[in-house]
Amino acid sequence: MDAAEFRRRGKEMVDYVADYVENIEKRQVYPDVEPGYLRPLIPEEAPEEAENYEDVVKDIERVIMPGVTHWHSPYFYAYFPTAHSFPAMLADMLCGAIGCIGFSWAASPACTELETVMLDWLGKMLKLPEDFLAGTEGKGGGVIQGTASEATLMALLAARSKIIKLIQAEHPDQSEADITSKLVAYSSDQAHSSVERAGLIGGVRMKKILSDNKFSVHGDALRRVIEEDRATGLIPFFFCATLGTTPSCAFDCITELGPICNAEKIWMHIDAAYAGSAFICPEFRPLLNGVEFADSFNFNPHKWLLVNFDCSTLWVKKRSDLIGAFKMEPLYLKHDHQESGLVTDYRHWQIPLGRRFRSLKLWFVFRMYGLKGLQAYIRKHVGLAKEFESLVRADQRFEISADVVLGLVCFRLKGSNELNETLLKRINSARKIHLVPCQLAGKFVLRFAVCARTTESRHVQEAWCHICHLASELLQELPH
Amino acid sequence: MDAAEFRRRGKEMVDYVADYVENIEKRQVYPDVEPGYLRPLIPEEAPEEAENYEDVVKDIERVIMPGVTHWHSPYFYAYFPTAHSFPAMLADMLCGAIGCIGFSWAASPACTELETVMLDWLGKMLKLPEDFLAGTEGKGGGVIQGTASEATLMALLAARSKIIKLIQAEHPDQSEADITSKLVAYSSDQAHSSVERAGLIGGVRMKKILSDNKFSVHGDALRRVIEEDRATGLIPFFFCATLGTTPSCAFDCITELGPICNAEKIWMHIDAAYAGSAFICPEFRPLLNGVEFADSFNFNPHKWLLVNFDCSTLWVKKRSDLIGAFKMEPLYLKHDHQESGLVTDYRHWQIPLGRRFRSLKLWFVFRMYGLKGLQAYIRKHVGLAKEFESLVRADQRFEISADVVLGLVCFRLKGSNELNETLLKRINSARKIHLVPCQLAGKFVLRFAVCARTTESRHVQEAWCHICHLASELLQELPH
Repeated sequence: MDAAEFRRRGKEMVDYVADYVENIEKRQVYPDVEPGYLRPLIPEEAPEEAENYEDVVKDIERVIMPGVTHWHSPYFYAYFPTAHSFPAMLADMLCGAIGCIGFSWAASPACTELETVMLDWLGKMLKLPEDFLAGTEGKGGGVIQGTASEATLMALLAARSKIIKLIQAEHPDQSEADITSKLVAYSSDQAHSSVERAGLIGGVRMKKILSDNKFSVHGDALRRVIEEDRATGLIPFFFCATLGTTPSCAFDCITELGPICNAEKIWMHIDAAYAGSAFICPEFRPLLNGVEFADSFNFNPHKWLLVNFDCSTLWVKKRSDLIGAFKMEPLYLKHDHQESGLVTDYRHWQIPLGRRFRSLKLWFVFRMYGLKGLQAYIRKHVGLAKEFESLVRADQRFEISADVVLGLVCFRLKGSNELNETLLKRINSARKIHLVPCQLAGKFVLRFAVCARTTESRHVQEAWCHICHLASELLQELPH
Repeated sequence: MDAAEFRRRGKEMVDYVADYVENIEKRQVYPDVEPGYLRPLIPEEAPEEAENYEDVVKDIERVIMPGVTHWHSPYFYAYFPTAHSFPAMLADMLCGAIGCIGFSWAASPACTELETVMLDWLGKMLKLPEDFLAGTEGKGGGVIQGTASEATLMALLAARSKIIKLIQAEHPDQSEADITSKLVAYSSDQAHSSVERAGLIGGVRMKKILSDNKFSVHGDALRRVIEEDRATGLIPFFFCATLGTTPSCAFDCITELGPICNAEKIWMHIDAAYAGSAFICPEFRPLLNGVEFADSFNFNPHKWLLVNFDCSTLWVKKRSDLIGAFKMEPLYLKHDHQESGLVTDYRHWQIPLGRRFRSLKLWFVFRMYGLKGLQAYIRKHVGLAKEFESLVRADQRFEISADVVLGLVCFRLKGSNELNETLLKRINSARKIHLVPCQLAGKFVLRFAVCARTTESRHVQEAWCHICHLASELLQELPH
């Protein structure tokens, strides 16, 4: 395919994409296919000879679409949102065309520098403490990671490396393995599975701190465990606080937890993967109070800030902590400017070496929406969640299972877990809307997350009617 | 921006991309900017109000392009290639539009299933042993990782988890920390820095095995170190073989190394990040002989197989080894089919949770080029490298520093390292072409990697004339 054909095919694809987005609500949100559906639809091997583009494109509707879960359908209320916007898609086209691999400043200065400045822009939008910004002389700064899982892992590895160096400076006889075997990291019992996974990867003990009846971790719960662990010779070194947990969007009390971590020399990382986007609104910014005690902070613009996946933003107060964890300098990656202290080589800030020019998406989205446009988007989603909450509360058969703070509503039928499991099964089998469950204090709970950019009040109302209808059917079947 | 505006702006962007690619050789391959160039060119904060798209687009040439290193210019010969093709860009547009996050089968069945089948297609193109294919009943299979760094890390973590379980099954009293402290992993002294980094992240000892005068590791070198280590109580568990090292594209002798690893119960991972693409050509496939002894194999279609970054393909013989390393099942990620054994939940196969629909790129590229088209592309690049090698060999002032097997030529002026450092500095300062160096057996060497899809014989000839001219100037300046 040459440039001339790409001009034609690219424009057709733009129309296909626009059509897909404009008509997405006509598609069934969750597919009917069974496992293994795709393999028989296509050949067993790649073709020897090149095919026609028409044949490839025809297969999108024949092979792919029947098996797609439509995350951007206004009937999709599962998991958390993943972001999707036209400006981000345009930026991604540009990113693909430039196709640079920005592992060092020299590998493409624009790729590195726009990222640093965009992370400063975004930090200012969130009113992050100055310490987290790069500016021209700061010691902190931000970086785009692929996912929050990687950001948590990077923070944990940096913390592990820091504590080992600290201890070895005082006790040069202690081996890394000895120290590691005594390290202990903490997170909420509501934290995302990726936090526990970071501990497994890093080879350190990870303990879950009990959350309260609002699913938040408080200072005394952490303090108690720290004291117990110190008494048995363990070395607490890392705490991952969650702002906006995955099950219920609960918030750990970082104004209490932060000072404890600081006093105990424990690295506090904040995972605000979903909720973080909301902090650009002044009315939600108080939820971030206490960030000044953190060593690192992460959230996913690719969830709720209209920037297509992947774009997970991580800030640190001391970039040297992150870089120090595993800086390596083979000759083939050296360049003239790297010793000047003026440049950022982002490869030291992340697990992978290669990286795309993802900051273009941030730049396009910030400018095409403006701060006000982004705030309006967040508020609209929160409003829709509140609307759904009111509908649930007005129906005596249901209960709300956790405070509705942002765009997630946790609810259930008053009654047994089995009843709610059956309800969810019927909702998802009907294929009209798509939800996933969670477990809260032993209860099976349905999660209603406002996800798609195009979700409007009418969709929420329709979803609620549908749920009510299925619930009524179910309740009527029960023996009285 | 609504769908109607996207139709217009998207088509403009398609033209911009086509123009960029068609005229890329008119742009200076390496930028003139100094560190910090970008920040003063744009505001200090994100705009409050939305801007016009025209203003954003104007800034691409004003702000971004002056700082871009043009990896797809035919004058770019640095690092290794990164892939770039129109079919891959079209597939990426579709991927962005669907915008699903395929962490589980249910999160988008098409995303998971196309990936499994595409990895089988690609495995067959490489003539990988049947064990590595998923098929409908296989125990192996492939997965797309972001980068080779992540693939190596995943393999090392899977190997670590496997050996720990194995030892604990026999010695339940041994703690994970105790065992980890005795583990030792190996790689060539020519291996990529990301391999050493995987060891650091995994918290295990990593030793470099001496390569021979062709920069290849042989069986006896590994065997010697294993014996020494076993004698001192260490537990060898992982060997990362490299096929196509970064400095010189050397090949470890896996037909010797594989049987040793198998006999010693050491996980053998093969990192063929760059060279792997060439194995689709029958004449280069012998370089992969010995893969039958490996537990995992990885290469980057995003380097040399016309699939835009990111797309790093990893195969394992036993998927249970990979999954077993850290499977976690929170309720919000459970789905009906997962216990059936029929489905793949790729989140267990990788570090991040989220993942894009990257297999679309493979599908589009395989079909739009066909196997023959891809083979022709590889052969063309190898031919250009051989052409450059002949030019170097015909000039008595220069020497070839390593066998030219694929698309990389390592060469230098006969003489001191300083002389060659100066030559490289002048080449890169002139900005006509872009190269990076490497170190081979203590010598400073220039690497000439055929990178861009659009590189032709005339560009290689031109590059050589330019290098000769600068070399002549430099040699004339020297005292006789």
